[in-house]
Amino acid sequence: MKLYLGIDVGGTSAKAGVVDSEGKILYKSSCPTGIERAFEAIVADMADLCKRVVQESGHSMEEIQSVGVGIPGEQSPETGLVALCNNLGWHDVPLMGTLKKLLGKPVYVDNDANVAALAESWAGVSRDVKSSVLVTLGTGVGGGIVFNRSVYPGAHGVGGEIGHMVVVVDGEPCNCGQRGCWEKYSSATALIRMGRECIQKKPDCPLAQAVKDVSNLNAKAVLDLAKQGDPDCLEIFHTYVRFVCIGLSNLISILDPDMFVLGGGVSYAGEFLLNAIRAELPKYLYCPAIPHARVELATLGNDAGIIGAAMLGREDA
Amino acid sequence: MKLYLGIDVGGTSAKAGVVDSEGKILYKSSCPTGIERAFEAIVADMADLCKRVVQESGHSMEEIQSVGVGIPGEQSPETGLVALCNNLGWHDVPLMGTLKKLLGKPVYVDNDANVAALAESWAGVSRDVKSSVLVTLGTGVGGGIVFNRSVYPGAHGVGGEIGHMVVVVDGEPCNCGQRGCWEKYSSATALIRMGRECIQKKPDCPLAQAVKDVSNLNAKAVLDLAKQGDPDCLEIFHTYVRFVCIGLSNLISILDPDMFVLGGGVSYAGEFLLNAIRAELPKYLYCPAIPHARVELATLGNDAGIIGAAMLGREDA
Repeated sequence: MKLYLGIDVGGTSAKAGVVDSEGKILYKSSCPTGIERAFEAIVADMADLCKRVVQESGHSMEEIQSVGVGIPGEQSPETGLVALCNNLGWHDVPLMGTLKKLLGKPVYVDNDANVAALAESWAGVSRDVKSSVLVTLGTGVGGGIVFNRSVYPGAHGVGGEIGHMVVVVDGEPCNCGQRGCWEKYSSATALIRMGRECIQKKPDCPLAQAVKDVSNLNAKAVLDLAKQGDPDCLEIFHTYVRFVCIGLSNLISILDPDMFVLGGGVSYAGEFLLNAIRAELPKYLYCPAIPHARVELATLGNDAGIIGAAMLGREDA
Repeated sequence: MKLYLGIDVGGTSAKAGVVDSEGKILYKSSCPTGIERAFEAIVADMADLCKRVVQESGHSMEEIQSVGVGIPGEQSPETGLVALCNNLGWHDVPLMGTLKKLLGKPVYVDNDANVAALAESWAGVSRDVKSSVLVTLGTGVGGGIVFNRSVYPGAHGVGGEIGHMVVVVDGEPCNCGQRGCWEKYSSATALIRMGRECIQKKPDCPLAQAVKDVSNLNAKAVLDLAKQGDPDCLEIFHTYVRFVCIGLSNLISILDPDMFVLGGGVSYAGEFLLNAIRAELPKYLYCPAIPHARVELATLGNDAGIIGAAMLGREDA
């Protein structure tokens, strides 16, 4: 039986799973990442986790074709090193090479948005379409472009960085050094910023009352009140949805994919968000008469990291 | 010998050529389009032109594998009809079907930006790269995305409409009904608009003196004065280049291609434009440390239409 190991490394825990060739998790487990430790110790634990997961699954390492790792960062296609992985404090570390030595298998590494996009295309909502763009509406806005169940990496490994397309020239300053990036208007952080502005203007508004201390303000508080019909939060929500749709419309003008898959924290607003985006998107299309990408919610939740990482090797086969 | 026919239809003339399998024109000729006539008469002339070109080339119709047509419009992938072709006054016409009947060969139709992009990838500046985006800086801004010498059509046939990505939310109104589309800032039309604004503010400026009547103002007048160092036109030029670079940077964030190929009327400004864009582009990149797409000028000029149209069949083979 051809099996694949997928590892999903986060700041808190590393999860690993044995995945079959169709993207089904047969067995999974996890261990603390322990990011305060040296890189070598973390990777040694990841390798041990892999061996344990395979053993506990009742399968053997011989059946494992390859190992994939999804990281909250970027591996340089030139050096094969993890160039940047802020949450883990990694900088130019040989993740691929070290794991390969420890496990004796081909190892693939990609960022978590690409991995989630791949997972959905193998075992989730985009499994029946040729082209999809996963959009993670989280602290920032990430993206993964998948054609025919393969991640589109770009020529220099930076394709799919959709959150940094500029939609407002000279707009809000972004961490990346540019201004007006899409993620400044379409991330959870944008919802929090707009919520904070609302509270500053109206210190007694329902949002202010709900969060009590403004430092507790999160995207969910804004979205929950919008769902309940609070006019201030609904206004924020509509502004937010408008910007999401402008970015999706740009991606349609360029890539014209079959499907957008919405992931990340904001996507937990579910049908409320989905229906608003579906209703609004046609207003921003260059040519609304032509059929356009379906918009769907990601379906694999926390398993996407393991499944997509495992399928990094599968797509290469 | 495997040969391909390419037809480049414009508002004034239809050009046709016999092209070899590497994108080299062996023989070409043209006839007036005669757009005042009925569709059937125009297509009959196109078919006659094809037969004549093949005969005069010294080859036979048996050697022709397929016929491709580049049009200033869009063919619907669903109906196979030319949905819209404003310059020719065509609307839902069976170009592909009629030519196929008249010539007895497979017929492919695509828009002129896609066709030019394909031509450059077979026989022009992008022939050695895997992924390229041709950007036509003309009356509007068009685009053609090519992967591995195939046009990327998108899932619904509207991929590559890069001129309609929004870069200034609530910006300049665009013909498409949206606001702030890239082409409102990066087309020849944008240079003319900025030139006109300059003349309104400074009726005695060198640009006003050069064009005399503002209705004669074209992009070349602005570019020529900028080249000569006129401060007003240089300011316009730098604003223009900045917007071009912001759009290219967005395309890098999403697609990360190997190369941009600049075509269209503005690209005739040549090295002056190219050097300015190359110098400016890194300032707008999300991650300037990572290598990015080369920027080059299109090299095939008027032959791109024939070559790319011919290669529409070649890529399918």
